[in-house]
Amino acid sequence: MEIKEKIMEHTKEVEDIIVKFLPAEEGYQKTVMEAMNYSFLAGGKRLRPMLMLETYRLFGGSSKAIEPFMAAIEMIHTYSLIHDDLPAMDNDDYRRGRKTTHVVYGEAMGILAGDALLNFAFETACKGLMLEPGNPNVAKAMQLLAQKAGIYGMLGGQVADVESEGLPLEREKLDFIYDLKTGALIEASMLIGAVLAGADEEAQNVILQVAGDIGLAFQIQDDILDVTSDMETLGKPIGSDEKNHKTTYVTIRGLEQAQKDVEEISQRALDGLASLKEKNGYLDELVAYLIHRKK
Amino acid sequence: MEIKEKIMEHTKEVEDIIVKFLPAEEGYQKTVMEAMNYSFLAGGKRLRPMLMLETYRLFGGSSKAIEPFMAAIEMIHTYSLIHDDLPAMDNDDYRRGRKTTHVVYGEAMGILAGDALLNFAFETACKGLMLEPGNPNVAKAMQLLAQKAGIYGMLGGQVADVESEGLPLEREKLDFIYDLKTGALIEASMLIGAVLAGADEEAQNVILQVAGDIGLAFQIQDDILDVTSDMETLGKPIGSDEKNHKTTYVTIRGLEQAQKDVEEISQRALDGLASLKEKNGYLDELVAYLIHRKK
Repeated sequence: MEIKEKIMEHTKEVEDIIVKFLPAEEGYQKTVMEAMNYSFLAGGKRLRPMLMLETYRLFGGSSKAIEPFMAAIEMIHTYSLIHDDLPAMDNDDYRRGRKTTHVVYGEAMGILAGDALLNFAFETACKGLMLEPGNPNVAKAMQLLAQKAGIYGMLGGQVADVESEGLPLEREKLDFIYDLKTGALIEASMLIGAVLAGADEEAQNVILQVAGDIGLAFQIQDDILDVTSDMETLGKPIGSDEKNHKTTYVTIRGLEQAQKDVEEISQRALDGLASLKEKNGYLDELVAYLIHRKK
Repeated sequence: MEIKEKIMEHTKEVEDIIVKFLPAEEGYQKTVMEAMNYSFLAGGKRLRPMLMLETYRLFGGSSKAIEPFMAAIEMIHTYSLIHDDLPAMDNDDYRRGRKTTHVVYGEAMGILAGDALLNFAFETACKGLMLEPGNPNVAKAMQLLAQKAGIYGMLGGQVADVESEGLPLEREKLDFIYDLKTGALIEASMLIGAVLAGADEEAQNVILQVAGDIGLAFQIQDDILDVTSDMETLGKPIGSDEKNHKTTYVTIRGLEQAQKDVEEISQRALDGLASLKEKNGYLDELVAYLIHRKK
């Protein structure tokens, strides 16, 4: 089977798991539930829950406790997109070809829907905690989720990104933003998979490095595609970074060097996975594919 | 000692505990940490962490695991105020005599500071979880925090409140809003205290009813003060509900009946506490005081 087909199958599997945790649309608070589900169901690669599940499988995990955490990480990713799109932030009217949440439901409900998804992510993860309330690995997974999403994780990266808008950016700060804004949730995904499956500390450290590299390669590839792709392939306007005078990895390192870097970083991620005694062939293929993605 | 003095002393005690959990203001994400602390340190009654601590004591609790939960519930209360004040929501420039967060730090940072506090609440509660990772009571406390803050708790009440703005409100929906918007976090506070101290299920049910009554009495008293108080005493403009054509408990029941109801509901809360074999004299006094508060 071609890797693209395999990814489609696995995406379907992940979707079927995570949608089970969405709230029913009912009661006086129905609108916010509709807005949550509208945003969550807008599509996307489901990369984070997929990496979580495959890392969990890599280390032989097989319990249902992983499922609420898969849904939770996607809820956190979705809330961050809703709030990023708000008028006071990036002010985007469209995402993935659909109207953004605040355009459909109004700005107040956009704020509340984001808040609701962030809160519901923890509420959902608590279901995992209550499945095995005495298991310290589940408590550790909960802590990783909170840490990697917050001010020392994704949100910290968003803050630095918002504050850098329109300003020239030094390499150190760009690395910080990439590491946190994109990297942190991918690290959370893979580490939670590893921790819940009971991977030892040495293996957890390998996974942390691998996940950091995947996040970085993913983000650099985003910058490269913004320069080299076309709108039809990418599904969104290209050249937006240049238009917004945005400092990216490509503007700092140049296109050719950025392409070399992405190969090198990705290879390092694959080498990391290869160094483990545990194997998951699909995870290797997925990581290799992500690097050469065209959108 | 007068009850007011006692409350001041206890507020100081609670403050000293909860401020320990605030983030240091450093790194590229420094601004959001400043905004979080600015809002958190703006004062307030610290009612929720105080009720949590005193309910914990009522049932003989004495471990440090309560402390991160006290900070967490106040962080959630604070985030809800920051987002409520945003231009797209209530658009308030002042709260407790200080400029609101978005006025000082800008709207984007106001949104992010609220998100950050909500996330940091769970990050902080996880510290309690990691103190006793195998203790199912701590896991249960974490779940209560998430449930009572989210769409089936406080946030659900906010959504119904936002959607009712400017519309006539039937009694059933008003009760729903009061129960969730104000009641849920007070229920979370007292229940978490009871659960962490190991109270049995029967006692937990009494506490749930008592907390619900305290929340309701507190909110009705708010409506009464908006009609009967003066700006100097209250510290904010009075008559704002009438000006905004807002349906309140007072407009539905009339002032006199509302005053009778608040007495009755409060007495029910005190009777609930009296029915328990465990006693906390200060908690009784605090509840009795809250009802007759003038601001």
